[in-house]
Amino acid sequence: MAAAKDVKLLGARPSPFVNRVQFALNLKSIDYEFIPTNPMAKTELLLKSNPIHKKIPVFFHGDKTICESLVIVQYIDEAFPDGPSILPSDPHDRSTARFWAAYIDDKWFPLFRSLRDAKEEESKAEIVEKISQGVKPLEDAFVKLSSGKGFFGGDTIGYVDIVLGCFLGWLKVNETISNFKIFDETKTPALAEWSERFKNHEAVKGTLPETEELFNILKMMQAAQAAAQSEASK
Amino acid sequence: MAAAKDVKLLGARPSPFVNRVQFALNLKSIDYEFIPTNPMAKTELLLKSNPIHKKIPVFFHGDKTICESLVIVQYIDEAFPDGPSILPSDPHDRSTARFWAAYIDDKWFPLFRSLRDAKEEESKAEIVEKISQGVKPLEDAFVKLSSGKGFFGGDTIGYVDIVLGCFLGWLKVNETISNFKIFDETKTPALAEWSERFKNHEAVKGTLPETEELFNILKMMQAAQAAAQSEASK
Repeated sequence: MAAAKDVKLLGARPSPFVNRVQFALNLKSIDYEFIPTNPMAKTELLLKSNPIHKKIPVFFHGDKTICESLVIVQYIDEAFPDGPSILPSDPHDRSTARFWAAYIDDKWFPLFRSLRDAKEEESKAEIVEKISQGVKPLEDAFVKLSSGKGFFGGDTIGYVDIVLGCFLGWLKVNETISNFKIFDETKTPALAEWSERFKNHEAVKGTLPETEELFNILKMMQAAQAAAQSEASK
Repeated sequence: MAAAKDVKLLGARPSPFVNRVQFALNLKSIDYEFIPTNPMAKTELLLKSNPIHKKIPVFFHGDKTICESLVIVQYIDEAFPDGPSILPSDPHDRSTARFWAAYIDDKWFPLFRSLRDAKEEESKAEIVEKISQGVKPLEDAFVKLSSGKGFFGGDTIGYVDIVLGCFLGWLKVNETISNFKIFDETKTPALAEWSERFKNHEAVKGTLPETEELFNILKMMQAAQAAAQSEASK
């Protein structure tokens, strides 16, 4: 196990992108120091360590700094070869994992994010339909990649599990608010089972934020937004 | 050298994303069969081999199919370990290369693409300014990564060279049309020199399309667009 003083993570626990790094570290049993920060605040440490994107997570390993969650997760896999592999060893399997990770971040997640910004119920319903449609290829990919085992990564969680699974907490919050279900037992039965299995994996449980906690954060964010608007209209 | 029958690339020569794969194959001296396709046409082979994105390039290696240019380039590096490495061997250097590749594709290229769609001169000027601003961090990254050598990859072209260099042909076309210069001798002297060096690299020369060729393609595209609009307004 790497010493905590060598490995540090600047982040905020409710951030799915920070969670990705935490899952990877947990999976590899790497001890680390968590440096909590307000995701809205652009602290000196954040601006200094990620001047390009000014976003968490930022990962520190000795004197090295690494930004961007997908880049960090791959770095952890390569810099800490002991413990379970996050990416498969076969080049073609690795390319498949990278393909689906890019699909989730570039195609699927933007839909999910647009749900947050949609004002009207009608457009929300349209977006939910698109999110559901976008999940179908992932259901097929899961069936292929898992080969009858429990995870995209086979027997244990791997790259695609981490990349998709990080969103399960916020997805639940959105599902509850808007009364829909994305990982559906009838339409995507394999992913519905996977999502329960993922949440209970030892590298995930206790790190993936509880729905209740995210609801409280959402309320705080909405209150802060309302206060800012009220202030602006004065 | 791999036999041509095993390695095939479905693409179109003017596509920068297809060029990336060609540069990687050239660098590794891998012989391959090029299957030319009209980038606008959704052929049966394209729909079958890349049903998710329906886009070129598509790479075939024996019975394996790989899509998405960044995924393909990494696959080529891993599946053909002989010849020059595309990504560095050190995990932190690899993460730095992946960081800048993501920056180019996710932050810089969308600006470049938005230039094509901009209708008014004023908004074009704004976009050109943003593209220029977006190049500055790449100039700094080049100075750091190249360590006084000729390329982002050091002595020879590597991942970041391939990812950025593929746009040089279309950039020149845009610069000529709109009378601006992105890789400027005074503002970004290192990249201005790099761009000339890159174009003349043996893995690039003859593959990166000539400006004249791209101008002709642009005229054909504009004529096709005008014909379609004229047809639609009948």
